Order: sequence, then structure tokens, then C-alpha cells
Amino acid sequence: MFKKILIANRGEIAVRIIRACREMGIQTVAIYSEADKDALHTQLADEAVCVGPAPSRDSYLNEKNILSATILKGAEAIHPGFGFLSENSKFAKMCEECNIKFIGPSSDNIENMGNKSKAKEIMVGAKVPVVPGSKGIVKDEKEALKIANSIGYPIMIKASAGGGGKGIRIVRDAENVIKEFNTARTEAKASFNDDSMYIEKFVEKPRHVEIQIIGDSYGNVVYLGERECSVQRKNQKVLEEAPSVVLTEALRKEMGETAVRAAKSIGYKNAGTIEFLVDKDLKFYFMEMNTRIQVEHPVTEMVTGIDLIKEQIKVAYGEALSFKQEDIVLRGHAIECRINAENPYKNFMPSPGEIKNLLIPGGNGVRLDSGVYQGYKIPPVYDSMVGKLIVHGKDRNEAINKMKRALSEFIIEGIHTNIDLHLEILSNEKFISGDFDTSFISSELKL
Amino acid sequence: MFKKILIANRGEIAVRIIRACREMGIQTVAIYSEADKDALHTQLADEAVCVGPAPSRDSYLNEKNILSATILKGAEAIHPGFGFLSENSKFAKMCEECNIKFIGPSSDNIENMGNKSKAKEIMVGAKVPVVPGSKGIVKDEKEALKIANSIGYPIMIKASAGGGGKGIRIVRDAENVIKEFNTARTEAKASFNDDSMYIEKFVEKPRHVEIQIIGDSYGNVVYLGERECSVQRKNQKVLEEAPSVVLTEALRKEMGETAVRAAKSIGYKNAGTIEFLVDKDLKFYFMEMNTRIQVEHPVTEMVTGIDLIKEQIKVAYGEALSFKQEDIVLRGHAIECRINAENPYKNFMPSPGEIKNLLIPGGNGVRLDSGVYQGYKIPPVYDSMVGKLIVHGKDRNEAINKMKRALSEFIIEGIHTNIDLHLEILSNEKFISGDFDTSFISSELKL
Repeated sequence: MFKKILIANRGEIAVRIIRACREMGIQTVAIYSEADKDALHTQLADEAVCVGPAPSRDSYLNEKNILSATILKGAEAIHPGFGFLSENSKFAKMCEECNIKFIGPSSDNIENMGNKSKAKEIMVGAKVPVVPGSKGIVKDEKEALKIANSIGYPIMIKASAGGGGKGIRIVRDAENVIKEFNTARTEAKASFNDDSMYIEKFVEKPRHVEIQIIGDSYGNVVYLGERECSVQRKNQKVLEEAPSVVLTEALRKEMGETAVRAAKSIGYKNAGTIEFLVDKDLKFYFMEMNTRIQVEHPVTEMVTGIDLIKEQIKVAYGEALSFKQEDIVLRGHAIECRINAENPYKNFMPSPGEIKNLLIPGGNGVRLDSGVYQGYKIPPVYDSMVGKLIVHGKDRNEAINKMKRALSEFIIEGIHTNIDLHLEILSNEKFISGDFDTSFISSELKL
Repeated sequence: MFKKILIANRGEIAVRIIRACREMGIQTVAIYSEADKDALHTQLADEAVCVGPAPSRDSYLNEKNILSATILKGAEAIHPGFGFLSENSKFAKMCEECNIKFIGPSSDNIENMGNKSKAKEIMVGAKVPVVPGSKGIVKDEKEALKIANSIGYPIMIKASAGGGGKGIRIVRDAENVIKEFNTARTEAKASFNDDSMYIEKFVEKPRHVEIQIIGDSYGNVVYLGERECSVQRKNQKVLEEAPSVVLTEALRKEMGETAVRAAKSIGYKNAGTIEFLVDKDLKFYFMEMNTRIQVEHPVTEMVTGIDLIKEQIKVAYGEALSFKQEDIVLRGHAIECRINAENPYKNFMPSPGEIKNLLIPGGNGVRLDSGVYQGYKIPPVYDSMVGKLIVHGKDRNEAINKMKRALSEFIIEGIHTNIDLHLEILSNEKFISGDFDTSFISSELKL
């Protein structure tokens, strides 16, 4: 096994990775910016190297400094966490060239999946359902009608230069296609001086459901169930759970096997997530693949009993997966709440500052992955997420009640947090009944 | 379900019960002594009643004040936790008479199991193995030899008035019985002016292994696996784990079914534990039954996925058990370390005082059941246990490494704790290999 790993990240995910390494007997090197010298990850690691000033481009995105620190400290591998350099194929390639193991997929995999149209093309090749649409620009109204009819309604006509709602039309039947296509095109021309138009199926009331997969170097790929991530604000996940209330065993298997097929088609290694949109008829469509560990990975860990960070490290080292698909059994229900230093009732304004008083909830089935402590000053320069509260109950009802209990115990004084927002979500009738989609926060909550 | 429960305890177990109630939608009433007005349990409960001054006999053992508080606050049930009034049959009877549900077994069960000789007699009747021995006083050397031969060697000859090692002999073969019997008797006569003698089988290098059971009001009793509690100091458990390294599936089943038979024979309801001695040949003998929840219950919760406090409340309310024996599957390995405010390297001197700085370990598979917070002043008048750190790993090796990781993160400043002692235990070769018995701490550790 690796003797020493450098963790190219900060905050709770850096702490999470340090903990996994320590349990595996692997030495850890943290990197930190000048703003993070008192951060928990800096203190917890066996060694810590300052890689530059506060702005991320000068420190957590400073590839050369990070590689130098890795070589200087004799680390054999780099865990990139999420964000920062985790999906930077150039950095992964630099690691490969320096003979440092990048704990993640190959640089080619990262590059291909990072390019949305390339990724979609690959998925089509692997027979993964994608949102049906025109192949490129739609020539004229006649072609528009033909494509719309072949996709099935409702469809969305979109200006390729679109933005701000301009040049977009949702059409629900054939008789309106030509009229709306022309109106949208005129609008696009007027707004962007570009009237090239696309057509795509309009997915109504979509849910965001993603499949966790992990692959090794021997062609084995296993799916670890799904995560329901529809509770979002501006495409940022807020609360995630596993399993999803809408998936049947059959659909879980179908989506899981689809995700595995997608991963195998590109020779994918390490942990990855295939994000799908699921429509109201439970049809699912590929959205994108995240070629890294995700923020919400703990809910999968709770229901599968598998430690994803340790598995990432093991397969990166060259070990074969220690489990097969049939070993994966989902048990109980897990929910994660992202704890952010922000004020949800003032337009989610970030709220950095000193944590003057901290009381952490505990007890049966409660996990906290956090990067803070009492007296810690949250710097204003980074993402507002300071921790994740995760619960595991025997069913969804118990998990909801456990999360409400844990959140109601949680005391963080000195800054604003989104704890009350989470309590509002968990008390919402639609959330409780499972009847929600990605518009939940904007349409259901009064903020 | 109950609408309101009074928790007749303090510290981490009171917090544990409040949490379970909150998750079940049950209102909680805490009781507290004058020394505990700032305690976490006092603050977390929905309501709190001061039941008297610091000495336990005036507050946590003050039956009348506690019953008055229960009636005054309109609570329908009392959860006694462990210690204090939890095994006081008179208090359980008072509750029964006041029509307040005592969350535990009947007062008769408590009384019978609290009387050691009565309990042993009942167990013999239920065909539960007990340490074989003479029935009462041994008349003379001839009877001594006969009994010794029938029990099998080694045996222990004990003065009934014995103490301090006087009048005790361990005999390993028949030819020494008469000589040692007479020597011990002479010594007993000289030391205690009482030469009545017993004979018992001598259990060599015993392990303490206990079986958790739970029964409902409909005659259903289920065993929830065992807990290995051999790491003790002066009969006080220090670290517990589940499962035990020495139990095979067959032995687990045999001990479990024996415990269920014992419980059924007395019509036992609610949670209980049958403690066994297990000798080096894996023969097991009844030691005692604890008619309450135990400190170490979380390790059972981690490996079974069953919330014991919630189950206690449900069966006390009259619900049938929601699981059958065949539903119980042990998963992974759990370890609990009791965190005590004491100095193990100064003869375990208690170390009350203010917690000036507190950093709680977290992450995957780590649970803390605690009654303290940063700034809390641990009062000098109660037990030194301030919390329990529990980990759950996929196997014993992972659990050990996880516990070491978690303990090494744990910062409690301002008082002494036994954290370093736990790290010493977890790093001991004999502990790691599983080769230990109840003498482990005294014989293996340098304190």
C-alpha cells in the first residue's frame, strides 16, 4: 500500500481523506493556503505544506507548487478530493508524467467526460439514454417539425447563444412547432444576433438521481446504488439522500447496469458518478459524469457499508475491488445536509467569521464530516460549506426524524448557517411524502 | 405511543434517551440535581425539574421527588437508564402502583435477578449452566473430595466468610483435595472464627461475554448477539466490543438460545443482559443478569442496526417486537471506549473540572454518546464516565484502527482522561490478537 499521500484539498473533504489514510496506516501530507494555516485539515495531517496565498489559483490550484510539495515530501500519490484540481485532466496528466499516482481516473477519462458534447456522444455509443434532441443546429421550420415529431412532446426549442430565458420555447404539440420555432428564432436573432437553434426533449419535473460506481484496474466495475439529489438551489445540491423514494428495485438495477456499461465502455477506473435526470414517468437520461468523489458520497457509504475513500485509494494502488455486484445490499436510509456558512434568508449571503460556540450533535446513527472547531475563523475566500451532517436510520421516516433531532441540537454561534433551512425542508409535506423535483426549493420554500 | 417520558438519570445516558425520544416524537422531562443545572441532559430535554441537592440519595435516588416530578409534569413513563434506580425493585413497584410505566422489566424480575443466590437457583431450573459447586456448606474432607471429583478440576475451596485471599485454595488434582481442604479450613477458622467452606469450579482465564436480549409482552424474546467485555479494571468494564473474537456461530447460537430460555423462564420483558464467564475451553457459565440497559449497549446497536432505547420504549408501551430472531444479522465489528475523567497513571484518580477545550472526533463509522461540551464543569460528585466513543468498521482490524484514529483526534483539555490508556490497550499485541481475559488490564498494562 502507499506509504504517504498528499491531499490536494482543504476543509471537510481534506479531513475526510486524512482520516481514511490514518485508518489505513498511510502517512498524510496536507497542503494549505496562507488563509488556512489554522484550518483543521492543516492541523490533523502528519505534515502540512503551505502552497501559496489565499486565492485558489495561487495555492489550491497551483499545480506546480502542489507537485513540488508532493515530491519534496516523498508522497507517492495525490488525492484531489472534489473541486479544485479534481477534474483537471492536465493536472492528472502532470501527475502521470511525474510518476505520482493521481487517485482518480485517467486524464483521458477526465478530459472526455469533462467535454459535455463528447461525453454525450460516448454515452450514445454505449447505449446510455441521453435527452433526445437535434444533432446540432436545426436548419429550418420544416426540419424542426420533423425532429420534434420524432422526439415526442413536450420539446424545448433553444437558441444556441441563449441565456436569460430569451430564445427558449417549450412546445407541447405538433401544431405549434413551426410558429414557436420562428418566434424563438426571431427573438434569438434580435437578442444575440445569432439565430442558430437546437431542439431537445423537455424533461418535465425532473429529479436528479445519480449512480455511484467504482472500477478497478482489472475491468471490474460495480454500482453502489443511487443518490437522490433533487433538493437543489441554482443547481447546487443542498440535501441528498439514499435511496431515492422513486426508484423501484428494477429501475435501480437498470440505471445501475447502465452506469456500469457507460463506465466500462471508456475503461473507467476509480470512483465516479453518473448523473441522470429522471422524468415523471421514471424515464432516465444521462446528464453528466463526475470523474471524482462527490460531496454527497457519505449517504452511499451509510447504506452500503463501503468506505468510498478507502476504496479509491485501494484501487488507485492497484488492488482489485474487494466486493462484487451481488455483495452490495442497501440497508436503511441515509440523509446528508450540507452545512453552509450563509444566510438563506438574506439571499444566501455567505457568512464567514469566527465560530464562537459549537455544540456538535451526536448519538446513534449521526455522523459529522466537518472542517471546523470552536474558535475557528471561517475565511471569506472559499466555498461556504463548512461540514456535512449525515444520518442513517432504518427507514426514511426514521432518517428524517433523526436529522431533525440532530439539526435541532446543533449549535453554531458567531456565523449564520443554513440549519433552519434544512429544518424547513425536512418539515415540508412534499419533501416528507417524497413528491418533489429539482424545482422543490424555489417553488416550495419561502425564502 | 407515550406522549411524555421522564428520564430518571443524568449524563450521557440521559442524553441518549432524550435523543431517542425526540426522534420518536415523545416529549422529555429531565431531572437534575443542584450540581447538574448546567448539564447537557438538563438543557436538551423539553422540560427539566430539579429533584434535590447534589448527593444522589437526595436527588437521583430520591424516589418520592422523582415520582412527584413525573406526576407534576404529566409524564406517563419513566426511563431509569442504568445505575441509580434502574435495578431498584422497590422503585419499579412504586411506579407500578402509581400507574406510571417503568421502562424495564417487572419489579419481580428485578428483585429475583438482583438476589444472586435466587438468580442462580432460577437459572439452574432453566437449565442455564452455572459455575458448578457444592450446594451450601461442605461437611468434611470426605464430602469435599466427592464433590471435587464430581465437578472436575481445577476447583476452588472457599471459606464462606472469606476475604482478602484468606481461606481460599485452588486445587488441580484429586490427591491434594483433602490436604488443601483442611489447611484452608484451619486458616478460615483462625482468620474469621468460622470454618464453613464451599467448593466451586475454578474458571481459569475467564472471559466476560454477555448476551443482549429483549422481550415484549407477548412472550417473544430475541437475542441480539454478544458483547465481549473482558477488558476490565476491578470488575469495571473499560472497553467493550461486538462480536467477541472467541465465539463461533454455533457457540453464539447456543449462548443466545440459553439466554432466551433463561429470560422466557421468568417471563422477562424489555431489554436485559445475561452475563457469562467463558473459560479457555469455551464452556460458559451464568454470572448474573442485568435487568436494564447497559453502558455498552451501543456496540450491539452498531452491529445489529437496532436502536435498543427505542425498542425498550416500544415494548414498554405494549408493542410487540418488530423483529424475529432470524432477522438479526451481525454486520461488521464495533468497539466502545468509555471516556472517563480520571488519571489512569495516578491510580485512576478522578479528575473533575472544567473542559477548557474540546475537539470531538467525527467521520465515517464514529459515534460519540457524551454528556459534556466545551466550557462544561464536570462535577466531582458523580461517576467519572463522561462519554462513550463508539466505532463501527467492516471487521475487527478496521474497528481497532478507526478507534485509534478517533482517539488520537480527540482533544479534551482542562481535565485528565483515560484516552491514552485506551490507545495503549488498542496497541497491545495480545489485545490485537484477541488473546486476553479479564486479567488483561492488570497483567498486561504498565500503569
